[in-house]
Amino acid sequence: MPDSVLVHSPATLSNLGCGFDVFGLALAAPYDTIRLTRRAAPGISIRHLDPYNLPTDPARNVAGVALLALLQAVPEELGFDLEITKGIKPGSGVGSSAASAVGAVVAANALLGNRFSKMELVDFAMEGEAVASGARHADNIAPAIFGGFTVVRALEPTLDILALPAPALWVAVVHPQIEVKTSDSRKVLPATVPLGLAVRQWANVAGLTAGFLTADYDLIGRSLADYIVEPARLPLIPGLADARRRALAAGAIGGGISGSGPSIFMLNKTEETAQAVGAALGSVFAELGIEFNVYVGPVGTEGARVVAEE
Amino acid sequence: MPDSVLVHSPATLSNLGCGFDVFGLALAAPYDTIRLTRRAAPGISIRHLDPYNLPTDPARNVAGVALLALLQAVPEELGFDLEITKGIKPGSGVGSSAASAVGAVVAANALLGNRFSKMELVDFAMEGEAVASGARHADNIAPAIFGGFTVVRALEPTLDILALPAPALWVAVVHPQIEVKTSDSRKVLPATVPLGLAVRQWANVAGLTAGFLTADYDLIGRSLADYIVEPARLPLIPGLADARRRALAAGAIGGGISGSGPSIFMLNKTEETAQAVGAALGSVFAELGIEFNVYVGPVGTEGARVVAEE
Repeated sequence: MPDSVLVHSPATLSNLGCGFDVFGLALAAPYDTIRLTRRAAPGISIRHLDPYNLPTDPARNVAGVALLALLQAVPEELGFDLEITKGIKPGSGVGSSAASAVGAVVAANALLGNRFSKMELVDFAMEGEAVASGARHADNIAPAIFGGFTVVRALEPTLDILALPAPALWVAVVHPQIEVKTSDSRKVLPATVPLGLAVRQWANVAGLTAGFLTADYDLIGRSLADYIVEPARLPLIPGLADARRRALAAGAIGGGISGSGPSIFMLNKTEETAQAVGAALGSVFAELGIEFNVYVGPVGTEGARVVAEE
Repeated sequence: MPDSVLVHSPATLSNLGCGFDVFGLALAAPYDTIRLTRRAAPGISIRHLDPYNLPTDPARNVAGVALLALLQAVPEELGFDLEITKGIKPGSGVGSSAASAVGAVVAANALLGNRFSKMELVDFAMEGEAVASGARHADNIAPAIFGGFTVVRALEPTLDILALPAPALWVAVVHPQIEVKTSDSRKVLPATVPLGLAVRQWANVAGLTAGFLTADYDLIGRSLADYIVEPARLPLIPGLADARRRALAAGAIGGGISGSGPSIFMLNKTEETAQAVGAALGSVFAELGIEFNVYVGPVGTEGARVVAEE
């Protein structure tokens, strides 16, 4: 077994329009780079090789907490040095905390002879998400572990995640530099939903699931529409309606809010379209005088993976 | 072109647990038998060769209304004699009215050289459903037309129906002879749904869609659960909880209320299990002193079809 592994752990989209709290999609890039090295002394040390001033106390770092959860399931008393280089900007709405938590547990599992299943790794990594957002949720964790398109069918009584294939897709994401607190984006959600609207939403959930499984791009596009969460969050994200209009005009299949925002994602059939859509998304925020970053990359068929061992 | 056609139009399950107003599944049997014959005089005559005393005025008969809707889309002035033999008992909750409406328009389309698409036939047949239940809905019409597993993704602005394959499955249905008015079964529905419950429901909708598309019987079974409609309708259908318990004990994958009830359906992997499950379902109503019928049959891969031409 190696003493040190290097893991790439990808950005992910959660919710995917109609599938609030359920759907996830892995990107191939950007990703966090995690180096985990076995050491003699028990416990965990964390070093961040990035400019984001994230906590390095294991009990307050999402990757640290996930790793501690995994270590609790291990009989040996082990020690690890964890080195994190974030390629995903924190707060960007593309699963930054999930990527770090997943990278840490995937790395540890490799150092332990892969004794845990992917489902168990999801469970450990969710502890990290709980620290980041106050709730144990798996909608970014699942695609970061399994890759492709994921459905969190149930958290209780048993964690039930479906790992499904995704057709070739290119994702354009714009991250406007506006702060949307997760607590605010939760607060605006309606407590109850009219039954008729819930039916329209789950009709789209069925359509999106079938669209991914049959590689039907048109079906994916028309099924992304979110009648419940996006209307509630629209006021938090200036430029969203314009961004969608311009992205569709530039050839996007469809899209929506990435996670709880403020990022906006658009799915595309080709890299060329995705680049044009990324530029169209950016133009909206340039005109609004809001700084932004644009990511363009293919959907990732694998989740976090070991790229080097020593 | 033939002057007379004979069509078999199958029973269907709508809702399918979690997919209220969206999912449908075609059975291979029972079915209504429709004979449609061209005649010289314009207009429609209807004759029922069954004991159910259904209206024979075309404007009040579901098949007549569907046929009239189709004839409005035809430039010629045509006349038809429509002969209906109901194999599906009216009010049994397995799409009796949809079967008759669909049979009539499929037969007429055959006599007209199949000039209409299946989606157009759905549209005509929905006029019949509107007479039967007061609402234009397609959740039984769609599987009766397309066969297999169907998703009514949208009725507006454009009718959007997904016709998906279903894996080999045997259905057991019990029809207890209690009257549940469609208006009552609508009245008990909640106007609004807690968001968290809606999320659990659409997680199952995704699971059931994926289960059908990947022929994953376990996934189908655990995804059928309906958190919203079944709890509201439970008081209308005595024996439902016991029926489910006994059916699962007898080997059923899962099931629920068929349409708006009072019938209960259970999905099964084999005919043998379906027969045992049908007997288990019946035993509950026998003990309650409620008369019942049991149907057992395979899922139908085709919808209504012409079986003879003259």
